[in-house]
Amino acid sequence: MTKINKLSDSADLSEDPSKEHFIYKILNPNSVCVFGANNNLLNTMGSMQLRNIIFGGGLNGNIYPIHPRLDKVQGLKAYKSVSEVPVIPDLAFIILPPKAVPQVIEECGQKGIKNLIITSGGFREIGSEEGNKLSQEIGDITQKYNMRFVGPNCLGVYNGWYGYPEKKEAHFNTFWIYLPHKRGNISIVSQSGTVAAQTAWHSNDLGVKIGKSISIGNERNIDIVDFLEFFRDDPQTEVIGLYLEEVKRGKEFIRLAREITPKKPIVAIFAGGTEAADRSVMSHTGSLGGNNKIYDAVFKKTGIISTNAITDFLYYLRTLSYAQINKIFPKGRKVGIITESGGSGSIIAKSLELLGLKVPEFSKELQSKIAEHLPPTGSKSNPVDITFFKSYYDFFVKLPKLIIQSGEVDCIIFDGVFDFEEIFEVMEMSGFPIDEKMKGSLGAFLSEIIRPILRLTRKKSIPFFYCGPQLYSHPLYQTFLSNNLPLFDFWDQPSKCMKILCEYSEYRRNFS
Amino acid sequence: MTKINKLSDSADLSEDPSKEHFIYKILNPNSVCVFGANNNLLNTMGSMQLRNIIFGGGLNGNIYPIHPRLDKVQGLKAYKSVSEVPVIPDLAFIILPPKAVPQVIEECGQKGIKNLIITSGGFREIGSEEGNKLSQEIGDITQKYNMRFVGPNCLGVYNGWYGYPEKKEAHFNTFWIYLPHKRGNISIVSQSGTVAAQTAWHSNDLGVKIGKSISIGNERNIDIVDFLEFFRDDPQTEVIGLYLEEVKRGKEFIRLAREITPKKPIVAIFAGGTEAADRSVMSHTGSLGGNNKIYDAVFKKTGIISTNAITDFLYYLRTLSYAQINKIFPKGRKVGIITESGGSGSIIAKSLELLGLKVPEFSKELQSKIAEHLPPTGSKSNPVDITFFKSYYDFFVKLPKLIIQSGEVDCIIFDGVFDFEEIFEVMEMSGFPIDEKMKGSLGAFLSEIIRPILRLTRKKSIPFFYCGPQLYSHPLYQTFLSNNLPLFDFWDQPSKCMKILCEYSEYRRNFS
Repeated sequence: MTKINKLSDSADLSEDPSKEHFIYKILNPNSVCVFGANNNLLNTMGSMQLRNIIFGGGLNGNIYPIHPRLDKVQGLKAYKSVSEVPVIPDLAFIILPPKAVPQVIEECGQKGIKNLIITSGGFREIGSEEGNKLSQEIGDITQKYNMRFVGPNCLGVYNGWYGYPEKKEAHFNTFWIYLPHKRGNISIVSQSGTVAAQTAWHSNDLGVKIGKSISIGNERNIDIVDFLEFFRDDPQTEVIGLYLEEVKRGKEFIRLAREITPKKPIVAIFAGGTEAADRSVMSHTGSLGGNNKIYDAVFKKTGIISTNAITDFLYYLRTLSYAQINKIFPKGRKVGIITESGGSGSIIAKSLELLGLKVPEFSKELQSKIAEHLPPTGSKSNPVDITFFKSYYDFFVKLPKLIIQSGEVDCIIFDGVFDFEEIFEVMEMSGFPIDEKMKGSLGAFLSEIIRPILRLTRKKSIPFFYCGPQLYSHPLYQTFLSNNLPLFDFWDQPSKCMKILCEYSEYRRNFS
Repeated sequence: MTKINKLSDSADLSEDPSKEHFIYKILNPNSVCVFGANNNLLNTMGSMQLRNIIFGGGLNGNIYPIHPRLDKVQGLKAYKSVSEVPVIPDLAFIILPPKAVPQVIEECGQKGIKNLIITSGGFREIGSEEGNKLSQEIGDITQKYNMRFVGPNCLGVYNGWYGYPEKKEAHFNTFWIYLPHKRGNISIVSQSGTVAAQTAWHSNDLGVKIGKSISIGNERNIDIVDFLEFFRDDPQTEVIGLYLEEVKRGKEFIRLAREITPKKPIVAIFAGGTEAADRSVMSHTGSLGGNNKIYDAVFKKTGIISTNAITDFLYYLRTLSYAQINKIFPKGRKVGIITESGGSGSIIAKSLELLGLKVPEFSKELQSKIAEHLPPTGSKSNPVDITFFKSYYDFFVKLPKLIIQSGEVDCIIFDGVFDFEEIFEVMEMSGFPIDEKMKGSLGAFLSEIIRPILRLTRKKSIPFFYCGPQLYSHPLYQTFLSNNLPLFDFWDQPSKCMKILCEYSEYRRNFS
């Protein structure tokens, strides 16, 4: 049976050069002290964040809340000051009013702590003299003690691979959102905490498997370039997502991105470049925004795939994650469409062609082979429209195999309503008898129907996208997604994602 | 308390000119005979369709299956031939192999039946001489008996308003999809059964309330122009959606569309116009497709809003439905953004500006008023970024009111995580005490928080879109949607929909 990989076969974790990088400990601390959490989960962000650090499950007893008054915070022994903590924590997590931050960092420095996440806002981004002064102060203190830090003005980090493989189910999550991403081979660095964290509802629903997500804030110390460097060497990272409002070290960014993209695709949102967006950016992270054209040129030069839409961002990441896991990179732009509906077939065909992909008419020879599996109302050209199921197996296996093996297309989009559970439910509800044998055989759908196609598409390096009109919450859809099979819940995204995958594959071929 | 309308206040059903139209009886038959259904729900589309006609609940005993062998079909008495049916049915529904269709129509004609839905495929669209001949035959027979019919090669009709207001919960649904749309003021006519029917999962999830949906097929007799005429006069229709592969009666289409769009907006997908799309269209409904430029010109001339994407299609319909229900049409293109996150605020601002809308910086006076409701980290310009909640009421009511009443913007997009149930769940799960009083007061969210804003935006004709990062399945999101409040589950669609609404409002103003 075809193995359906969760991470790429190439991810050899025994040799992991990223372990030597200074960022490693920030994502994988063995002990953490937390400033600014209490027992009020509704009104304080820091309490929500501590709650999530605790619920990550990997740190066990090694979480040390620091609180001037409370003896216990969220069930943990609290300390009046970091100096009282019985160990030197690998990481200090700070969410306090900005004025209190320099003093606390000083104490952390004296304690010997080397890594910080400073969540607090109120520095450079508020545009006041006081904010800039505080920003300079924390820069000076951390330099004195040789400390590195993420932030300020950030949500911190999520590491779905914390302690892996020893700790199977743990994660390390400093976000206030209580929903962790589902881990996979995608890593995100974001100048927006919202893009890093609050995408989790959608990413989980769509099957976008984010293993690491970083809200990097004002980048007073650690910046996007540092994280690019880390992710370049991280075997758990195979696709990188960026949310950018500015790039501080332009040259290093370009050099690193060019080095990375031929092996690990990068997808970016640049959110500045228009008048109000720049105003928003200025007050958000205090950066000056930038020119759309400059960023477009940088993205082109470095092979970075860019978009302005958050939905596309997540879909492109998912598509490239699938391509990396299965090592499926199409060799051209010719797309075959198999559908059970003329309408969705037309919509998909048109969008592909408007995006610059080809939907070639099949050869007479292939058409006559296809016709054997179609009812008289069906269409055997391209799109192949079966109009209705004569046989499940023909639709899901025989027709796809014929077209994959024909060599006439480089990619396939497969569209239909392939839903068993709901049909059985309707039958039961409507008082119809149910053939239990049939119900059982459809349970083997994944092993007998889907895996043979996956095996063949891997062999031929032909991406095969499934799509249908139901919701991702459908149990069968979730089965596809949990197995990293590219399933789409409607007819718009498959074409856009196929275009991105074709373009990236062309780019990548230039380096092979 | 503000009334939240389900249909427009203007929908006076006592005077309903559409009742005189010949289409009325096809959507509202008092009795139906069905050819081509049996008791096998899994393998025959017609059986699924009969099941759905039965489950619509409005027809009671007035459904007459015709079957040559069976005595009972799905629990109903079956008749060997339509001549044996004890009444003259208002409508015959036919899904039989194409060769059997002419004979059955002849029998229906002799019986005195005047309206047909012919679902069967295998006519003009298969491109054979035999298909064309059969098509001609059914044309001749129906002409002889003065019959009107939808189809062939269609799924038929869905009428969510069947028997309304006497029958509160009934609908009439001949689709094979078992999920009916949730009824509202949107009506769809589609040359694709899939677009008419298989959008129901998404339309229901997104709160796109479709009252009537027509799969019109090959248009051998009744065409899109007939339905436009019907929907023009139908008080239950306030927004119209079209899926087009061709328009047969071009002049009449243009004339009617121009008459309708100033009062009832029309959104269209034209799915032909590229090479493979035209090939798909040809085999789908047998039409010749057409030129994108010609269709674009027609849409422009008639004020029809067009898109190639099915997701946009549904969102635009929903947006215009909200505008019609609440009579909210913005007076300009200036948009205010209220957010709790810099990242999503920047994404929304940029997309608005790229789409040609304005996000003006607020006046100093307004900014100083806004600042009173913000923490020091907040941003008072436009976007207004509160960064975090100081007070629910300030965020949801005071800030919006300030900005609505300022007169500085024509539209507002409001973005945040406004989720109570999940936070309470997390608190309970994490062992935190829950303030039951708070839980109770948040239950009044809709009446105390949302309705005052709705009232004010109606008064000022300022569209107010809510958006957040959670899924539509969230109970609070569904509460918004069931009350026709425009809520978006992410940060891309609000800008696109606002653009459409601004453009349509400008267009409409030219006629007032």
